[in-house]
Amino acid sequence: MAKPQGLPSQADDFSGWYNDVVYRADLVDLGPVRGAFVIKPYGYALWENIQRELDAMFKATGHENLYFPMLIPMSFFQREADHVEGFAPELAVVTHAGGKELEEPLAIRPTSETIIGELYSKWVQSYRDLPLLYNQWCNVMRWELRTRPFLRTTEFLWQEGHTAHANAREALDETRRMLEVYAEFAEEFGALPVIKGEKTDGERFAGALQTLTIEAMMRDGKALQSGTSHYMGENFARAFNISFNDVDNQQAYAHTTSWGFSTRFIGALIMGHGDDKGLIMPPRLAPVQVVVLPIYRANDEEAKGRVMAAVATLRAELVAKDVRVKVDDREGLSPGRKFVEWELKGVPLRVEIGPKDLEQGVGTLADRLSGEKRAVPLGELATRVPAELEAFHAALFERATAFRAQRIYHAETYAELKELVELGFVYATHCGDPESEKAIQEETKATVRCIPLDGPSAEGTVCVHTGRPSGYARKVIFAKAY
Amino acid sequence: MAKPQGLPSQADDFSGWYNDVVYRADLVDLGPVRGAFVIKPYGYALWENIQRELDAMFKATGHENLYFPMLIPMSFFQREADHVEGFAPELAVVTHAGGKELEEPLAIRPTSETIIGELYSKWVQSYRDLPLLYNQWCNVMRWELRTRPFLRTTEFLWQEGHTAHANAREALDETRRMLEVYAEFAEEFGALPVIKGEKTDGERFAGALQTLTIEAMMRDGKALQSGTSHYMGENFARAFNISFNDVDNQQAYAHTTSWGFSTRFIGALIMGHGDDKGLIMPPRLAPVQVVVLPIYRANDEEAKGRVMAAVATLRAELVAKDVRVKVDDREGLSPGRKFVEWELKGVPLRVEIGPKDLEQGVGTLADRLSGEKRAVPLGELATRVPAELEAFHAALFERATAFRAQRIYHAETYAELKELVELGFVYATHCGDPESEKAIQEETKATVRCIPLDGPSAEGTVCVHTGRPSGYARKVIFAKAY
Repeated sequence: MAKPQGLPSQADDFSGWYNDVVYRADLVDLGPVRGAFVIKPYGYALWENIQRELDAMFKATGHENLYFPMLIPMSFFQREADHVEGFAPELAVVTHAGGKELEEPLAIRPTSETIIGELYSKWVQSYRDLPLLYNQWCNVMRWELRTRPFLRTTEFLWQEGHTAHANAREALDETRRMLEVYAEFAEEFGALPVIKGEKTDGERFAGALQTLTIEAMMRDGKALQSGTSHYMGENFARAFNISFNDVDNQQAYAHTTSWGFSTRFIGALIMGHGDDKGLIMPPRLAPVQVVVLPIYRANDEEAKGRVMAAVATLRAELVAKDVRVKVDDREGLSPGRKFVEWELKGVPLRVEIGPKDLEQGVGTLADRLSGEKRAVPLGELATRVPAELEAFHAALFERATAFRAQRIYHAETYAELKELVELGFVYATHCGDPESEKAIQEETKATVRCIPLDGPSAEGTVCVHTGRPSGYARKVIFAKAY
Repeated sequence: MAKPQGLPSQADDFSGWYNDVVYRADLVDLGPVRGAFVIKPYGYALWENIQRELDAMFKATGHENLYFPMLIPMSFFQREADHVEGFAPELAVVTHAGGKELEEPLAIRPTSETIIGELYSKWVQSYRDLPLLYNQWCNVMRWELRTRPFLRTTEFLWQEGHTAHANAREALDETRRMLEVYAEFAEEFGALPVIKGEKTDGERFAGALQTLTIEAMMRDGKALQSGTSHYMGENFARAFNISFNDVDNQQAYAHTTSWGFSTRFIGALIMGHGDDKGLIMPPRLAPVQVVVLPIYRANDEEAKGRVMAAVATLRAELVAKDVRVKVDDREGLSPGRKFVEWELKGVPLRVEIGPKDLEQGVGTLADRLSGEKRAVPLGELATRVPAELEAFHAALFERATAFRAQRIYHAETYAELKELVELGFVYATHCGDPESEKAIQEETKATVRCIPLDGPSAEGTVCVHTGRPSGYARKVIFAKAY
């Protein structure tokens, strides 16, 4: 059992806090191979909830799931010049199988554009075959040197959507549509406000013409890229010959997109909501939405009987309302110890029922955000809990939005930028020169997170770094990032 | 689009029929690496339905999902002697990653007992930590030389449950419990009757003391092992040191189990139900349960409008009843062509609505099993369809059960056995000698599929092959198998 005490405070050591909380809250464990983590049941249940909700949104926007093989011939990566440059250094390579050396080494997919491009070239012959709107849920592998649970791991779980369209307009619409799906999911299910924007040339996906991103603010003021959607133009279609007879019987290349969302988002939820007591789970994704603690003195069998009967009734009522409820009836652990443990695990609501509560016909309800306790009549608890969960979601989103508002700054000069990126997100005008971006990153560790789709205009301003005209219609956001 | 005509008949060429139908019904496509197939949306939707129902059964029996890393140090396989012998020849091995040669090669999991054993040894310290009841859904890789879609592929999708218990009794109960879950799933959702039994010494899982299996009969009389559940005794616990302090404060080894069910079952559904027209999907798992075909003459816009309005109403009513409905409103394809295509894809029910139907206020309902058409008042269709789907499930299960009953034989002599295994399953007495099993297999290509948990007693009979006493309390089942 994880020890709940002794978590470092976020202010003192945010990184230490993160590392402690992921293990102590039983989300992950170390695997035997460096950089690959076991996702334990409490962490995996969160991922299952993410998958279920996001998958429903994909299907509602017309997508179907399928599954492509994991091993990709190494030669496929050579076909798109930017793509191979971006991914080749991170590949894990199978050279032997079935006791023999393979004729051609096979890479474990770091992402599947290449193998999917190969198949789409078979599936697309006519404009009637378009669009292809497919997605897969799978594992991928990128051999990273510095790894951290959920944030950067050699193997991770994700979904990757891959679509092919007859023209640029439809593909760009799809790219934007899926960004909106990610943003809506992050906010409506994760209670995490995000900024939607476009990546600069230097930060685009390897092989893409446009990369859209949602960026969330963590509670140390840093950014976490939480989902990306890419427009590839004809790059992959040309590399893999995804071409078709168009309406006018002319040969044309398809325009493709891809979009991905991964277990990284679990890291975003942890760092975007957690506090010094541990995790705070957004109710709509929480593996356990309400924990019920029966309270009675050891050896008082009579009180135990009455308490457990009331707890069983409440549990059944909550289950009937599709509330994810857990009764913590472990013996030999003090209620105080249990409180601390469920706080650490970030369960939104806690209900205690003891003999004194029963005398008054109530249960004691507390929430993980305010910690305030209120007595609720037993007969009302099962209807009160779903309403409290919704209120908790709204309060959590509000808290994150207010926190972010306090940490968004505007820099007019490079000196201001350098100072303010230590604190949070900074709007500033930038010329768009990748060399300047690189120089700023080397000096400040901050990068351009995105050119926000909505945000202050850059009109009449000049680059804080070079003094040249703005490279974009809007100011960009600089921040340190995970 | 696959051409529905020209499927070989099952009687002429069952193997050719299978290979044609999986591609033409759009379940799979060939990938670029030999032995790895793309599971296309129609096939993957079937897998999603299998996953959803089976996962609910796992959770109802107290299991939680988690996720272990895919890459396993090669040395782990050495620790259990039988296990390495069984799996080493099929491993795919990563030797290079991140541009460097690895210090120790890593195998892509062929199954995860070893890496899970390593972690369970950390997680289990006291009897209070037991049982561990975990499952994972993932991809695995076994480098097979002869591959066929779904039946034998280098990469496949499955679930693997892994549990640890304080004693043999509990582990054996779990092994049996999960066999019952698989059998219930195969029959209640797949409409496929199965025989539950135990594997002989020669057919057990590498490292297990007991392997239980469900065996289904395909429509060529061959067997397909559709799910297995293994009791490992202390083998893996000793190899990976999964030990604990028991109630009496004595050190003891855990008893472990594992159980798996894979995309192979899709092969079982195809070959267990299909006919010369193509697939027949069991309704409770069918990606599309009912297809609605609007019928009207090209250019008759008035008729089209009325038909499409009625179709839209029916569709909405069916969706409201959670029926998986597809409206085939493709233009430029004749109704006859559409019929044949949906027959090939095995959709259980078809509703046609045309101007003549509308005049009589009906839709024409047909089912994939009998092909019989009946006129159903439009207002009754939405309630009739769910009842027809249930009746279809019952009829399909009945059909498969009757087919199997006709193909189960009893052999008293080896000559009879050799003749009858060409036709189906054969009950016979066997001495249990692995050498005799091997000799029978070499001569007849048939193996002992299982010692059925229920079945004729072997009392007073002798081995059909060696004349020695029976090795088991019951007669075994011989059959050729996939």
